[in-house]
Amino acid sequence: MEIEKILPEIIQKNDKKILLIVLDGLGGMPNPNTGLTELETAKIPNLHDFAKKGSNGLTIPVLHGVTPGSGPAHLSLFGYDPIEHQIGRGVLEVLGIGQHLGKEDIGIRGNFATIDEKRIVTDRRAGRISTEENQKLVSLISENIKEIKGIKINIYTVKEHRCAIILKGSGLSPLITENDPEKEGEPIKKIEPLSDEGKFTAGILEEFLKQVENILRQQGTKAKTILLRGFSKIPKIQTFEEKYLLKSACISSYPMYKGLSRLVGMDIIEGLETFHNRINALIDYHKDYDFFYFHYKKTDSAGEDGNFEKKVSFLEDFDEKLPDILKLKFETIAITGDHSTPAVLKGHSWHPVPISIVSPNIMPDDVDKFTERTCGKGLMGTFHAVNVMYLLLASSLKFKKFGA
Amino acid sequence: MEIEKILPEIIQKNDKKILLIVLDGLGGMPNPNTGLTELETAKIPNLHDFAKKGSNGLTIPVLHGVTPGSGPAHLSLFGYDPIEHQIGRGVLEVLGIGQHLGKEDIGIRGNFATIDEKRIVTDRRAGRISTEENQKLVSLISENIKEIKGIKINIYTVKEHRCAIILKGSGLSPLITENDPEKEGEPIKKIEPLSDEGKFTAGILEEFLKQVENILRQQGTKAKTILLRGFSKIPKIQTFEEKYLLKSACISSYPMYKGLSRLVGMDIIEGLETFHNRINALIDYHKDYDFFYFHYKKTDSAGEDGNFEKKVSFLEDFDEKLPDILKLKFETIAITGDHSTPAVLKGHSWHPVPISIVSPNIMPDDVDKFTERTCGKGLMGTFHAVNVMYLLLASSLKFKKFGA
Repeated sequence: MEIEKILPEIIQKNDKKILLIVLDGLGGMPNPNTGLTELETAKIPNLHDFAKKGSNGLTIPVLHGVTPGSGPAHLSLFGYDPIEHQIGRGVLEVLGIGQHLGKEDIGIRGNFATIDEKRIVTDRRAGRISTEENQKLVSLISENIKEIKGIKINIYTVKEHRCAIILKGSGLSPLITENDPEKEGEPIKKIEPLSDEGKFTAGILEEFLKQVENILRQQGTKAKTILLRGFSKIPKIQTFEEKYLLKSACISSYPMYKGLSRLVGMDIIEGLETFHNRINALIDYHKDYDFFYFHYKKTDSAGEDGNFEKKVSFLEDFDEKLPDILKLKFETIAITGDHSTPAVLKGHSWHPVPISIVSPNIMPDDVDKFTERTCGKGLMGTFHAVNVMYLLLASSLKFKKFGA
Repeated sequence: MEIEKILPEIIQKNDKKILLIVLDGLGGMPNPNTGLTELETAKIPNLHDFAKKGSNGLTIPVLHGVTPGSGPAHLSLFGYDPIEHQIGRGVLEVLGIGQHLGKEDIGIRGNFATIDEKRIVTDRRAGRISTEENQKLVSLISENIKEIKGIKINIYTVKEHRCAIILKGSGLSPLITENDPEKEGEPIKKIEPLSDEGKFTAGILEEFLKQVENILRQQGTKAKTILLRGFSKIPKIQTFEEKYLLKSACISSYPMYKGLSRLVGMDIIEGLETFHNRINALIDYHKDYDFFYFHYKKTDSAGEDGNFEKKVSFLEDFDEKLPDILKLKFETIAITGDHSTPAVLKGHSWHPVPISIVSPNIMPDDVDKFTERTCGKGLMGTFHAVNVMYLLLASSLKFKKFGA
C-alpha cells in the first residue's frame, strides 16, 4: 500500500488511546416485510447518539463486490492490504480452534473422507460423520502418530468431518500439492512437492496418510483417509508495535479473532467469555495499552442463522452496554463492522459497512442515526476499510507532516 | 498513476483556458465556541455563489489520514503522485528562499550548530542565533569560499540558525550521509558516500566544512559549524507542457510556490506582492497562457497562527475580490485548497478540502454553500486531489475519447 511507503517517516508515539469496536457482520439488508434493515429496526439510542457526535461513512471491506471471510475483513480493518497479506486456509483453521502456530509450522485443513481398497474417493466428506465420531478418530490417531522423521504432528477436531493438522519442526514448506481429487469416483492424489523445498514435507504427509489409513481401516467408520489442503505458514506481517508504534490488546472471546489479533502482534486478554467480562477487561487494562480491538460476535452469528429479530436484539444488547464503554477516556473511538452479514442473505456479504468515528479531531457531520443508509450520507463517504486505521491514527495526532 | 498510462493517447490542445485557484490551507475545523468552521463563519457570498453554479466535492490531499506539507500537497493538485515524486528537503529549502536549481545541482538544508574543540556537538541550533547574525556569517562564508574542486558553492540565510546551500557543477550526487549526530554530546559525523557515485560530493562537503569551521572559529558566535542534511536534486518530472500540452503560468508571491511551479515547468510571473497585483497579472497575461495557477497564501498563515478570526477575515477579503477574477473568460475554474489548516489545530491537517469547479461541462449539483460540510455532499464526492487536474482538463474538453 502507498501509505506504507511513508509510514515509518510520519508515525509518532503519543499518550493518546484508540478504541476500535468491531460489531461482527454489522451491516444488514432490508427485511422484505418492513423495508428496514436490522440497524434501522433496532432501538439503539446510544449508537445513534454516537453517530450524532461523530464523523460517519461506509467502508468497503476489501474491494467493490467482494464478500470477505473474517480473515481478510479483519486484516483490512487492522490496516493491512488483505489481497497482499493472504492467510492460508490451514492457518485460519488452526487459529479458529484456538491453536498457536510457530513461524516455521505448517497449518493444514483436513476432511475425513471415504476411499475404497483401490484408494478411489467415494465420499469426500465421509458421510459427514458426527463431531463425536470425529473426536474419537482424532484421539486414536493422536495416540498412534506423534512424530514422523523428527516432525511433530498434531491433529485436532474442528466439526463433523473437518479436522486441522499442525506440523511442527524445521525444514517444512507449504509448497506441495493437495491430495483431494475434487471429484468422487477418482483416486486420491499423491502429495507432490511443487519445488525441491517441498520434497521433505510431501514425504512426511504421504507417510502420515499411510499410517492414518492403516489405523482407520480397522475401524467401523466411513472415515478411511483425510483429504488435506490449505497448507500454509503464518504470513510474515509487521506487528502493530513495529508498524504503528502501538501497544495493543485484543478483547474477544472467539479463537479465530484472537488468532488474527495475535498475528498482528496484539496481546490477547484471555478468559473473557461474557460481554460483561469484556467490558471489565477494557476498564482493567485501559491504562496498559495504546490501542484496543473490542470484538462483538453475536451480530454475525444471528445474521448467519438468517435470524433477523435475533440480530436486532443483539444490536440492542450492545447498545445498552455502550455507555459503560464510553465512560473510559479514549482520544478516538470507532464503531464499525468487519463486513455485513444481512439476515436475509444468511451469510457474509460485500455491502459497505457503517462506521462512526468520535474524536476531538474529526469533523462532525449531520448524520444522526447509526444505520447503513444514514452513514452513507456522512462526511467520510464510502471508502476502503484498509484506511480506517490511518484515520484513527491521524485523529489521535499520531502522524507527523509528510514532506515540507 | 493509471491515467498516466493513457494520457499521451487522449490529451489534445484547444484554445480553452483553465484557472486553478488555491486558497492555501483552505479547510478548517469547528470553533469550539460556535460549532462552525472558518468557512462556515465567514461572510463569503461570492464563494457560495460559485459553489452554487459548480460541481462540488472534497479532496484528500495525499492519502487518508496523511497531513501533507506544501510540496506534496501542491504536486498532488498539479496531477503528480506525491508519493512517487518526493521532493528532497534540501531542494524545498532552496525553492523556499526563491533560488533556482539546475538539473545537476544539489540542494542542501543547513543548521548552524555549536561544536567544541573535539568536534562534539554541544548545541544543534547554535543557540538559535538571530537571522541578522546568520546573515553576517553567511556573507563571511560567501566571501571566503566560492568554489572547491571546480564545484561552485552558494550559501544563503533562511532564518535564525537555518541556512541553505547549493552545489553547482558536474559529477555531483546526493548519495551521501548526513553529518548531524541527531543528539547533542556526540561528535559530528563524517559525510560518507553511500556508493561510489557519492565519493566526490562527500569530499567536497568535508573540505567545505573544514574551511567553514576555520572561518567561524575566529568569530564571536555560537555558530561553529553547519549540520548538513536533505541532500537532493530536483526530481525528474514531466512539465505541464509535456504532460498536458498546456502553456502555464504561476501567480503567487511566495518563493516556495513559485519554486514548485517552476519544477513542473510553469512560467513564473514575478513582482506580484499584493493581491491587487496578482489579479492584474491574471488580466494582463490572460491571453498568453492556457493554464493559470493562482495562489492565495493568507488563509494558511492565519490557520498556522491559530487565529480563527483572521482566517475568517482573509476568506472574506478573497471573497470580495473574486468577482474581478470571474469577469475573465475561462472555460473551467476550480477553487480549492492544497490542504486544510484548521486554526484550532494551528497547523496543516489531513482533513479533506472543499473544491468547487465551474465550467459549462460539469454537472451542477444542489450544493449552495462553499464549506467543508456542504461540499462533502456535492456530486464529486470525496476523492484524491491528484485527480483534480484530470477533471479540469476533461471539463475543458482537452481529452479525446479513450478507446473506440
